[in-house]
Amino acid sequence: MKAEIISVGTELLLGHTVNTDAAYVARELSALGIDLLFSCTVGDNPARLREALQTAFARSDLVITTGGLGPTGDDLTKETVAQAAGVELVRDPASATRIEEYFRGREYGPSQYKQADLPRGCTVLQNDAGTAPGCVFESRQGVLVLMLPGPPSELLPMLHHYAAPFLAARTGGVIASRMVRVFGIGEGSAAERLADLLES
Amino acid sequence: MKAEIISVGTELLLGHTVNTDAAYVARELSALGIDLLFSCTVGDNPARLREALQTAFARSDLVITTGGLGPTGDDLTKETVAQAAGVELVRDPASATRIEEYFRGREYGPSQYKQADLPRGCTVLQNDAGTAPGCVFESRQGVLVLMLPGPPSELLPMLHHYAAPFLAARTGGVIASRMVRVFGIGEGSAAERLADLLES
Repeated sequence: MKAEIISVGTELLLGHTVNTDAAYVARELSALGIDLLFSCTVGDNPARLREALQTAFARSDLVITTGGLGPTGDDLTKETVAQAAGVELVRDPASATRIEEYFRGREYGPSQYKQADLPRGCTVLQNDAGTAPGCVFESRQGVLVLMLPGPPSELLPMLHHYAAPFLAARTGGVIASRMVRVFGIGEGSAAERLADLLES
Repeated sequence: MKAEIISVGTELLLGHTVNTDAAYVARELSALGIDLLFSCTVGDNPARLREALQTAFARSDLVITTGGLGPTGDDLTKETVAQAAGVELVRDPASATRIEEYFRGREYGPSQYKQADLPRGCTVLQNDAGTAPGCVFESRQGVLVLMLPGPPSELLPMLHHYAAPFLAARTGGVIASRMVRVFGIGEGSAAERLADLLES
């Protein structure tokens, strides 16, 4: 299974935020034996996200987006992904109820409900630390699409508790990797001495 | 000027390393008023790096690579970039001398000299904290290409002391951005109240 991450957020392209989400997702995929071949970042820009999605749908079996699921006007991931994947967004009643419960006694506007609009027929991934649910579904192109929220405090529990178990059921192998630290000689000399090992 | 970062390194796709380089470069570009539109990560894989470079050369004015400049067999950035950019690699005598001086009294192999092979006619960016120089040159497609080393301890001084001044000479404007923190109301409600400001 060939995977690709698309991180969405202008703050990443301005360097305000370091993309730890991509590293968390990468580590999880590696543990699951899923090959991550590309990771891309685009801003909150539907045209450039669409371009990244079209490329990803053509070359990957699993496309994971992070970010852009929130209630504000620049949170355009779901709308753009749904369009590129050829699926319709419909309001998920359970997610809408969760949003009402989350904001009970506090002020909230109609834009919060936008977060409950999800691709028709998707598996909803509950957000235990925020209001924007994630989801996983199959695109019209036959690609598995997983959408995760951007804030690491929301992404991490969703990834570990809901997304990883879902993906684990679809995979078999595991990638084993090991970091080798050398001391006293340069990286180049170490590689020359270990050449037979590296080539095996 | 539309810019794009291509980070090279399998360690990034395994999640062993968080891509702080991309954030450092992004922040510098933002300060210089250069629009960063895409940031991509590929592994130490020439075919996938070539694919990323072809896409980048077709849509960006400035392509910045990080990583893959070292002496080991998986450090393939320069060879792949040079080929995609239609330029030849030639040994830079000053860089070769710096490598000899760096390793004086220590063991080093012929693979270290590979680091002194740079695109013909490029501007060499000195590495004050390691052996792999960076460089900046124009590709056959007319795209400005900047190659920076992967280790942050090497990338940061090269970026600040040599790469940024080079780029500053080519640009005019500055992107101003401001982070707004809200307390007591949700992000959605804040966006609704600030809508006139956001749209202006």
